[in-house]
Amino acid sequence: MKNPRVAVVMGSDSDWTVMEKCADQLRAFGIEPHVEVMSAHRGPERVAQFARDAESQGFEVVIAAAGMSAALPGTIAGQTVLPVIGVPLEGGAMGGLDALLSVVQMPPGVPVAGVALGAAGARNAALLAVQILGARDAALRDAFRRFKTDQADGVVKRNAQLQAKLRS
Amino acid sequence: MKNPRVAVVMGSDSDWTVMEKCADQLRAFGIEPHVEVMSAHRGPERVAQFARDAESQGFEVVIAAAGMSAALPGTIAGQTVLPVIGVPLEGGAMGGLDALLSVVQMPPGVPVAGVALGAAGARNAALLAVQILGARDAALRDAFRRFKTDQADGVVKRNAQLQAKLRS
Amino acid sequence: MKNPRVAVVMGSDSDWTVMEKCADQLRAFGIEPHVEVMSAHRGPERVAQFARDAESQGFEVVIAAAGMSAALPGTIAGQTVLPVIGVPLEGGAMGGLDALLSVVQMPPGVPVAGVALGAAGARNAALLAVQILGARDAALRDAFRRFKTDQADGVVKRNAQLQAKLRS
Amino acid sequence: MKNPRVAVVMGSDSDWTVMEKCADQLRAFGIEPHVEVMSAHRGPERVAQFARDAESQGFEVVIAAAGMSAALPGTIAGQTVLPVIGVPLEGGAMGGLDALLSVVQMPPGVPVAGVALGAAGARNAALLAVQILGARDAALRDAFRRFKTDQADGVVKRNAQLQAKLRS
Amino acid sequence: MKNPRVAVVMGSDSDWTVMEKCADQLRAFGIEPHVEVMSAHRGPERVAQFARDAESQGFEVVIAAAGMSAALPGTIAGQTVLPVIGVPLEGGAMGGLDALLSVVQMPPGVPVAGVALGAAGARNAALLAVQILGARDAALRDAFRRFKTDQADGVVKRNAQLQAKLRS
Amino acid sequence: MKNPRVAVVMGSDSDWTVMEKCADQLRAFGIEPHVEVMSAHRGPERVAQFARDAESQGFEVVIAAAGMSAALPGTIAGQTVLPVIGVPLEGGAMGGLDALLSVVQMPPGVPVAGVALGAAGARNAALLAVQILGARDAALRDAFRRFKTDQADGVVKRNAQLQAKLRS
Amino acid sequence: MKNPRVAVVMGSDSDWTVMEKCADQLRAFGIEPHVEVMSAHRGPERVAQFARDAESQGFEVVIAAAGMSAALPGTIAGQTVLPVIGVPLEGGAMGGLDALLSVVQMPPGVPVAGVALGAAGARNAALLAVQILGARDAALRDAFRRFKTDQADGVVKRNAQLQAKLRS
Amino acid sequence: MKNPRVAVVMGSDSDWTVMEKCADQLRAFGIEPHVEVMSAHRGPERVAQFARDAESQGFEVVIAAAGMSAALPGTIAGQTVLPVIGVPLEGGAMGGLDALLSVVQMPPGVPVAGVALGAAGARNAALLAVQILGARDAALRDAFRRFKTDQADGVVKRNAQLQAKLRS
Repeated sequence: MKNPRVAVVMGSDSDWTVMEKCADQLRAFGIEPHVEVMSAHRGPERVAQFARDAESQGFEVVIAAAGMSAALPGTIAGQTVLPVIGVPLEGGAMGGLDALLSVVQMPPGVPVAGVALGAAGARNAALLAVQILGARDAALRDAFRRFKTDQADGVVKRNAQLQAKLRS
Repeated sequence: MKNPRVAVVMGSDSDWTVMEKCADQLRAFGIEPHVEVMSAHRGPERVAQFARDAESQGFEVVIAAAGMSAALPGTIAGQTVLPVIGVPLEGGAMGGLDALLSVVQMPPGVPVAGVALGAAGARNAALLAVQILGARDAALRDAFRRFKTDQADGVVKRNAQLQAKLRS
Repeated sequence: MKNPRVAVVMGSDSDWTVMEKCADQLRAFGIEPHVEVMSAHRGPERVAQFARDAESQGFEVVIAAAGMSAALPGTIAGQTVLPVIGVPLEGGAMGGLDALLSVVQMPPGVPVAGVALGAAGARNAALLAVQILGARDAALRDAFRRFKTDQADGVVKRNAQLQAKLRS
Repeated sequence: MKNPRVAVVMGSDSDWTVMEKCADQLRAFGIEPHVEVMSAHRGPERVAQFARDAESQGFEVVIAAAGMSAALPGTIAGQTVLPVIGVPLEGGAMGGLDALLSVVQMPPGVPVAGVALGAAGARNAALLAVQILGARDAALRDAFRRFKTDQADGVVKRNAQLQAKLRS
Repeated sequence: MKNPRVAVVMGSDSDWTVMEKCADQLRAFGIEPHVEVMSAHRGPERVAQFARDAESQGFEVVIAAAGMSAALPGTIAGQTVLPVIGVPLEGGAMGGLDALLSVVQMPPGVPVAGVALGAAGARNAALLAVQILGARDAALRDAFRRFKTDQADGVVKRNAQLQAKLRS
Repeated sequence: MKNPRVAVVMGSDSDWTVMEKCADQLRAFGIEPHVEVMSAHRGPERVAQFARDAESQGFEVVIAAAGMSAALPGTIAGQTVLPVIGVPLEGGAMGGLDALLSVVQMPPGVPVAGVALGAAGARNAALLAVQILGARDAALRDAFRRFKTDQADGVVKRNAQLQAKLRS
Repeated sequence: MKNPRVAVVMGSDSDWTVMEKCADQLRAFGIEPHVEVMSAHRGPERVAQFARDAESQGFEVVIAAAGMSAALPGTIAGQTVLPVIGVPLEGGAMGGLDALLSVVQMPPGVPVAGVALGAAGARNAALLAVQILGARDAALRDAFRRFKTDQADGVVKRNAQLQAKLRS
Repeated sequence: MKNPRVAVVMGSDSDWTVMEKCADQLRAFGIEPHVEVMSAHRGPERVAQFARDAESQGFEVVIAAAGMSAALPGTIAGQTVLPVIGVPLEGGAMGGLDALLSVVQMPPGVPVAGVALGAAGARNAALLAVQILGARDAALRDAFRRFKTDQADGVVKRNAQLQAKLRS
């Protein structure tokens, strides 16, 4: 079995409900991710270890999800040369605005690729990873091309269903 | 001369003041970007043409910047299999919150890699592109590794300067 | 049967729950809208086709609803000379602020007529369309005049009901 | 001389700095607007009079601009059958968010067509009026069609200028 | 029976659920308010009539509640010399921020006394009215003084209950 | 000389730049306010003393201005039976939103009459005080009636000036 | 029995649901807090009494929780030399943003140590108190050190559980 | 010379303009802080080293300032048992809201004591450190007591100056 090319890490095991959608989306492209719970605030040494070893472990993209003062994506980005995708999670009183700003508003020099809050972002993080991996994996790029076509077809189909419903 | 591997597009030529920082950061890594002004709202056909041809033109990453209801990154992302990095620009009465949410809150299925507002995001978009290209360009990855080391050294140096200033 | 004068389009069939209120409000004025699911991000070619043909198809007003980074109204507005009404939809973690700003904060040159978030906006989009069509349709304008009178009467009636309840 | 078809009203004469852009944009289409200062809060009777007479005066569209608790567009919309376009103005400590929400978040039954904050919205209000009037004025519609083409050409031209600048 | 000294008006009969708390608080001070449903947007003539007659009807304070683009308090304030208290109501997608800003951010020249969103504001509007009426009604002022003492005693009592619970 | 009927207090002498507009507006109605700098956080004992004595000192209304975590209005309201008007001041990084919410979002039982941020609120606080005092001061109420008429006339006059400017 | 070293005060007994988590976290370190309901707005004299006596009562840290215009932490901080930790509580229509800003945005001269909204902040307030007390209580500092280790171990354990679940 | 008891660290030397106010406030209490520039994102190893050694170096409190996605305070808090005070800095397009939420909204288990944005917070961080150190330093506590008295006197003095100015 191949080494996982994508790592999906999250600050708490309770985040799995949302991030499972990310893993499922990756699997739909034949990518079995490495999944790990680690906390930038509650276990920074493991995060540092993970980040520093990520490249040599064979990961090509890291997807990191966190809520509130969501430091995990930025902390990893500070310690690896790999592209890091940050998924802000809802769940606090601020409706996720805290996580969104913490993920996206990174200072110059240490980029994080921010995606949307919650489940939408979890799925899009997977797709963004597929796009990135696609740069040197023609089969994956073709699979993503088909995904886009299927997605467009899906809109057509759902439109047809709505039309049918409206006529009935 | 090699074909540009990165396209930097923006909704208005007035955005160049900010996005020049993105181009400069790319050039610091030896990457001369293709730069183009195009508008998702004021010239959608050129955007569609650009997006559909982006892969065959040899681009590997697209960086798209826009302000207000910042549709450019998402519009391109909808029409290419390449990873698209979105830079929200300040400038309206909302302090850029409109652009930030428009760039980041993409619906599931069409990812945009959102970075910070304005100049910080412009530079980070370049660095994220370098990270992505680094996946199949060992020299670029090494250059990024050195950039990170230099950056850490820069903090040390600026700390030393502050210490000197405090002692004087 | 007459061609539909108003098109009601939305990014997802799940938006129909809200946008049915728009269609119902139009039907209350004898206007049967053309309803279609299309996605600016997931099926941009169909949107471009729709927008470019909208005038020749006989539509006079387009109502477009979308959530999150709500690009649909602006994308259509960029490709038609018809007035486009944008309905921002709730549903993400941001409580709809993302959709509201994406719909309203259009750059100069490409107007979208923004209405309120969700069901209130869905109904008002229909009424705004009726007002616009009323410019060259005296019967419709008179119907809208009656609607306004009825609406004012409705407030009087509900006041009377509250008074009765308070006295009982 | 023809009666003005569009009224541009605003809460304060100091708003003219912004709303002159609206009038200029209308004049670019040969439409000389009726311009009037009136205040929903400081002179409600004149506003009521204006709104009730707007249709019989020959206006076809009303553009109303206001800042802070921007009641003018909604107040007029409550008293006319004409379409009302609301321009929220910046200027208070809230950066215009107060005006934006006051203009857009109208209750069901009384639509206002909201546009962007400040100068962008002022220009777009004019263009939206042109689109609405275009429904029964083929020459105006054609003029708007040319405006869109010119606008797209303008983006191409500015792109060419940037390319020239980048080469030099 | 005495004429009501306080009018409690609201934009919709569905607001009564919240505003009943205002009426109840007034009644606790022996003040039976005049209650009326009227809409600044859907029935502006009745609102104007009410506002212009409010003083001669014997009202001394007007409490006006509304949600979304909450124009009712400001519209009344524009047409009466009486103090107007504005209660912003929750209920839209914006969590009431729209109503709060619409009520409080009145332009210079036309004050509205803004209170908190929803039920807290409804009760406080009543108390503010009592404070205002107390200026020339010594019995009412004394009643309010007792209310404040009772309220402070209530905190002491609830503290004692918590202490008891903690010990048990 | 009569005792002042209105007290205008503020958290810092630097607030006088804004609150002078409040005093000037009061003076335009012949009301010379008592002005005092006091801080709920930096000098709570003086605030408590002031609040507890306010009624016996002959004040009828208290206007209190503060920025950031604007506790002054609420602190006074907690210790007096007089109506308290709160003026939130801009000046921090949050654009005054912190002060606005601190002033308006009072818990049930202790009302503060919130007005707009900054200079607009400063003037309106004065006018609200005049409205409240007008309840038992017919001359003042008549003066306020004239103020409203003059204000409406002012809008008419500024409209005339704009018309003249547009014709020239 | 030792005097309590930490006081946990809150504006309403209904806040106990959240603040019990704070007390429980303190008890996990062997610290039984003094718990008291007191209101800055509804019972300011008791608050002043408490704050002025806090040091002589033997308290070393005060934890104060409040919602909406959350004045309690700042009011106490103004009247004691002890460090005050402020816990903003959710519960109003603003999602707690009002309480968060009221707690954190204290003017210069009177610090409050602000923690996160709601239950997360309640627990963290306890931990911050433990850190502060740890300065002169080596046993407590060691207990906190163990807490941090246990917490890091807890993340490792939850990761292992997720791994097990994923394999099954 | 004694070892510094307080460390003041910041993400960039450009933050010194603001944080000098923190150092000055500490020095006013005879505390010469250790000052250091370090970046959670651009130099995480130095931050980890600093945080892990902070206690053994003799620091008793750490004050950490950062802007945008302000990770520095939380990163340090995750790796030390000392109390960490976080100062959010303004400077980005979001007006500091990003930094404020990143600093305050820490997840349960890792507290940061958040203070106000910018200069107000910088000064208050110093005062909070003085309060914390005062627990086992009676002279410092007495100095803080005098600071509070002086501060209250300062308000009285500035009030007197305003009174004099008003009379002149």
